Amino acid sequence: MPELRKDPISDRWVIIATERGRRPSDFKEGGAGKITEGKFCPLCEGNESNTPREIIAWRKSGSEPNKAGWDVRVIPNKFPALVIEGEVNRTGIGIFDMMSGIGAHEVIIETPKHGETFVDMDETHIDKILWAYKNRITDLEKDKRFRYVLVFKNYGEAAGASLEHAHSQLIATPITPRYIKLELTNAREYFHDKERCIFCDLIRQEMGDGTRIVSENEYFVSFTPFASRFPFELWIIPRRHQHDFSIITDEERIQLARLLRETMLRLKKTLNDPPYNYMIHTSPNIVPRAGKPDYWGTVQYDFHWHIEVVPRLTKQAGFEWGTGMYICPTPPEEAAKYLREVKL
Amino acid sequence: MPELRKDPISDRWVIIATERGRRPSDFKEGGAGKITEGKFCPLCEGNESNTPREIIAWRKSGSEPNKAGWDVRVIPNKFPALVIEGEVNRTGIGIFDMMSGIGAHEVIIETPKHGETFVDMDETHIDKILWAYKNRITDLEKDKRFRYVLVFKNYGEAAGASLEHAHSQLIATPITPRYIKLELTNAREYFHDKERCIFCDLIRQEMGDGTRIVSENEYFVSFTPFASRFPFELWIIPRRHQHDFSIITDEERIQLARLLRETMLRLKKTLNDPPYNYMIHTSPNIVPRAGKPDYWGTVQYDFHWHIEVVPRLTKQAGFEWGTGMYICPTPPEEAAKYLREVKL
Repeated sequence: MPELRKDPISDRWVIIATERGRRPSDFKEGGAGKITEGKFCPLCEGNESNTPREIIAWRKSGSEPNKAGWDVRVIPNKFPALVIEGEVNRTGIGIFDMMSGIGAHEVIIETPKHGETFVDMDETHIDKILWAYKNRITDLEKDKRFRYVLVFKNYGEAAGASLEHAHSQLIATPITPRYIKLELTNAREYFHDKERCIFCDLIRQEMGDGTRIVSENEYFVSFTPFASRFPFELWIIPRRHQHDFSIITDEERIQLARLLRETMLRLKKTLNDPPYNYMIHTSPNIVPRAGKPDYWGTVQYDFHWHIEVVPRLTKQAGFEWGTGMYICPTPPEEAAKYLREVKL
Repeated sequence: MPELRKDPISDRWVIIATERGRRPSDFKEGGAGKITEGKFCPLCEGNESNTPREIIAWRKSGSEPNKAGWDVRVIPNKFPALVIEGEVNRTGIGIFDMMSGIGAHEVIIETPKHGETFVDMDETHIDKILWAYKNRITDLEKDKRFRYVLVFKNYGEAAGASLEHAHSQLIATPITPRYIKLELTNAREYFHDKERCIFCDLIRQEMGDGTRIVSENEYFVSFTPFASRFPFELWIIPRRHQHDFSIITDEERIQLARLLRETMLRLKKTLNDPPYNYMIHTSPNIVPRAGKPDYWGTVQYDFHWHIEVVPRLTKQAGFEWGTGMYICPTPPEEAAKYLREVKL
């Protein structure tokens, strides 16, 4: 019999098809890293003059900004969803609310080499990508117009990637996005009730149980969520309490790079290189400072940053758009087993 | 400059790209109604013995159940997401909640003819489809295990349709789905504050403004929502207050059939037959009866049923999955203009 399961952090109910669960070979989508030869790519090394001017880059010593000689490079998105210049004007139109579309939209070019995918890079290179994430979040958090910075990656055309050169993006928004708010609200209520972080409790339960654990090291653990929305959905989370991605230490960062790479390699091997998205959920920008609590009150105690990985193997249809529920055709316990046991 | 807009009913913020808005010709997806010749179809007239036994059908007089001679036919889904037999057992597993996957999953076969699409049917035929929706909702509402009945349609493979023969589906769930709950909660708060239905206020404002109206008749109006999540998203809603789809009168039903057909035809002509989903949002099953208010309190006053139509023209990517926000590349005012002005 199928099961209805509820995720305690997002309050989301999903339908898990426990029988006739779809196996990796049942998903046709794959080969997301395919490369078209001979097309001009503005993200490649040597083509720096074809992009907006870089914001930061991990550069080889002696190299100049906006020239070759970088490992990871961050630029403004040429076609931004939100624009950086201006004030956030708020307006009401009768029953409706509106705000000017102010925000940041940046592209993190993960490698100078066209065709190199995330799992082709070694952990010290992925560490530089994480360095760029941290650097940009820390910088954008200072801009008082922004409430949140979302870092995300679209891999493969089916996952929304419009350029095949390996890249991530970030969008800073003048509001705290709906899903983040939901997690923040639930985590805060839980903390106020129990004086414990809901994420820490979840990690303890998952590690004690073990059936959904995929991989772990000293600082991080990856697992398939109990109420997975999608087959082979994954979370990567720090084992020790940490509310904000930007306070990650160098020692933690290299361990995250290692686990992230390994997890994405497991995903690639299990599902024949599927398209995916990953998103970093970190605490919102406005946090209590110097004893001045604000809207998010106890966020440093109750929130816990994490990375959500969503392979794009199933289609959303009327049921999902109509309800906000999901039908997941592979139980997360089976998905975890495939991911754990795949030969790397 | 782009705009951030908030939908007052779902509390959803979206980013509307007001400049360089994508026009109908910018969307490549189309031809959703294409038909593969020569494949066996279990939904076709004459193949009734290949489906589960019918639940109801609009039949020509003298015809027998599970034989030819029907206009619209409702059957259980052969591969149901939720199963009809059993009790709803509720369990907690540490931090997690679980429920047995009990529910109804039915297929409404809209026509006996393979290849006939929604807009090929005339309004009296579409009226029979709506009759089937109403009949099944009314019947399933009596089952005390179910909290909600969602009727939806997936049209075209990209919208999740796995059979090309025209059909809709319904799923009855033992919980009130998340999106419905959100609409119910916001509508109730609004009503408690103002003693007015938020949907009625919205209709008044939209009809007064007019820029997002697509079409209307005596009882119904269709428009593109102010905070559209998707390009060419549409709502169809009764102009007079009515909380539940199942109390629609025969006179209203035929007018709905007419407007629904016309709206879908406008969509088809404007966007070269795009894939789409539509979903009916009606009140939940448990409503106050005989002076006994329950969880949804004043639902007959504060909720207002409607149909949401979602053309599938854009991809969801990391930003959408990470935030629950949407980037809509076509302003709803422009979409409405295209839909209004298209030659039928």
